[in-house]
Amino acid sequence: MIDDRNGSAKDVPVAVLGLGLMGRALAGAFLRAGHPTTVWNRTPGKADELAAAGARPAATPEEAVGAAGLVVVCVFDHTAVRALLDRLDAADRGLLAGRVLVDLTSGTAAGAREHAARVAAAGGGYLDGAILAVPPAIGTPEAVVLYSGAQADFERHAPALRSLAPDATTHLGEDHGLSALHDAAVLGLMWSVLNGFLHGAALLGAAGADAAAFAPLAARSTVTVAGWLADYARQIDAGAYPADDATLETHAAAMDHLAEESAALGVSTELPDLVRALAGRALAAGRGGESYAALIEQFRRPAPPAGPDGGE
Amino acid sequence: MIDDRNGSAKDVPVAVLGLGLMGRALAGAFLRAGHPTTVWNRTPGKADELAAAGARPAATPEEAVGAAGLVVVCVFDHTAVRALLDRLDAADRGLLAGRVLVDLTSGTAAGAREHAARVAAAGGGYLDGAILAVPPAIGTPEAVVLYSGAQADFERHAPALRSLAPDATTHLGEDHGLSALHDAAVLGLMWSVLNGFLHGAALLGAAGADAAAFAPLAARSTVTVAGWLADYARQIDAGAYPADDATLETHAAAMDHLAEESAALGVSTELPDLVRALAGRALAAGRGGESYAALIEQFRRPAPPAGPDGGE
Repeated sequence: MIDDRNGSAKDVPVAVLGLGLMGRALAGAFLRAGHPTTVWNRTPGKADELAAAGARPAATPEEAVGAAGLVVVCVFDHTAVRALLDRLDAADRGLLAGRVLVDLTSGTAAGAREHAARVAAAGGGYLDGAILAVPPAIGTPEAVVLYSGAQADFERHAPALRSLAPDATTHLGEDHGLSALHDAAVLGLMWSVLNGFLHGAALLGAAGADAAAFAPLAARSTVTVAGWLADYARQIDAGAYPADDATLETHAAAMDHLAEESAALGVSTELPDLVRALAGRALAAGRGGESYAALIEQFRRPAPPAGPDGGE
Repeated sequence: MIDDRNGSAKDVPVAVLGLGLMGRALAGAFLRAGHPTTVWNRTPGKADELAAAGARPAATPEEAVGAAGLVVVCVFDHTAVRALLDRLDAADRGLLAGRVLVDLTSGTAAGAREHAARVAAAGGGYLDGAILAVPPAIGTPEAVVLYSGAQADFERHAPALRSLAPDATTHLGEDHGLSALHDAAVLGLMWSVLNGFLHGAALLGAAGADAAAFAPLAARSTVTVAGWLADYARQIDAGAYPADDATLETHAAAMDHLAEESAALGVSTELPDLVRALAGRALAAGRGGESYAALIEQFRRPAPPAGPDGGE
């Protein structure tokens, strides 16, 4: 069995621990790619459909781990991963030796580093992963899954992991915290896009306009901004922010309009207040003639305490 | 001359007042579309290139207005529009009668309504417009220009106005404030997208990752969210927010991660604080099982004063 761990992509045995909506999607994708797949869930009844599709249900997590060189964990949260590691440890201290545990549970960078140290102490490899996809997208070209941890562990199992995200299975680096950080960064961006849309919909709604009428314009504008990110990233990495488009000073004048319109219509001013606070600090730092990307400096450090006129 | 005002699209004489970067782009697009175009700028020297391309420079704004049924104004701000209207009024009280003034200067809804009332008192029509495009995009399929004001005024000049935005010349409604509101809503959304990106880049940068490495992932995620807006808009207009994807409660757990990672790496927590404040209020209102779109309720009214543990 141990030799199979380094076999060709198709016959690497895989275990999936945790059969929520996402765990079942992961196991299904491994099965479709031809991997012998053993599955386990804390509460029973989740494996029936997978078993019908060819998965082997295990009675215990240690049985599932024992069947595979690649062990994928997708449980509720960090605490559930810790409980699972406790249980494996109690069952057999040497169980993880020589295997790679891939943790696809959402968590923090600190949590990933904690688990990595623990699995390493047991002689195993640990990759932390972040799934940027909804369950039905797993195994399709839409899925993005990011990994962090030892390059060698990633390379060993990349062929099998590509069953989950054929076009976007990415190794971010050796620091186990990187995938949780990227997950957080992407979610923060997504919420920010949605907040921008919701603020706009609230503003226009207060003037009697439907959100449905705003949506196509909002989507178009969002896609336009997505096209600017590569250039702004180059400015950020270079530490120079030439205003090839609009200056922060020009933006600031329009930000005042947004705050004014929002207040006049009685909608929340939280979003315009945030953007004005950031731009105001950049202007005070003499960056009014630079591009919007110069605001990165304001994001890089904790916000200063609100001033006497900050009203925050 | 007066008859030309209702002529076919190509021979409607147009005047452009204000020849900054955007004003010159507007005049250039009218010229390319075959419109007799008279141009004026407060300070001289801006019309030379346009004159070489066939524009007729006017010595005064009243001369330019007198030459056209469609008068496009694109000056620095609301105050500059007011000064221009003062000047036209002083020169000839009847000058605007029967003409349509299209104000493409950035401003507020209140400012647009003020100008509209004033032009109406002079017997003219007024459309307020918002340009969602950079100057080089004017006249191309990328350009979006939104108009608000009397439907009849818009329809009369839509063929000429399509010279500026052939694929997206849109009439929003009769309320003159609508285009300024849409402009503000779109800008707020764009800043929000950029802030999400900058926050993520700052977070990952603190962990040693380049912004350039984050940009493709960020762009992909942004485009993904753009694809969700139409569905969320339908939920907003229906006032019902079924969680077909993730519930607000699930989002809230991940928001805590983002705040935790941000604080741990010493970057600003302003963006996670905002999103947590919004979600926290929605959860307190019993909306934890609904979709992200349920946050619209929080945007629709002023934020409550920060509580004792709000720290804001």
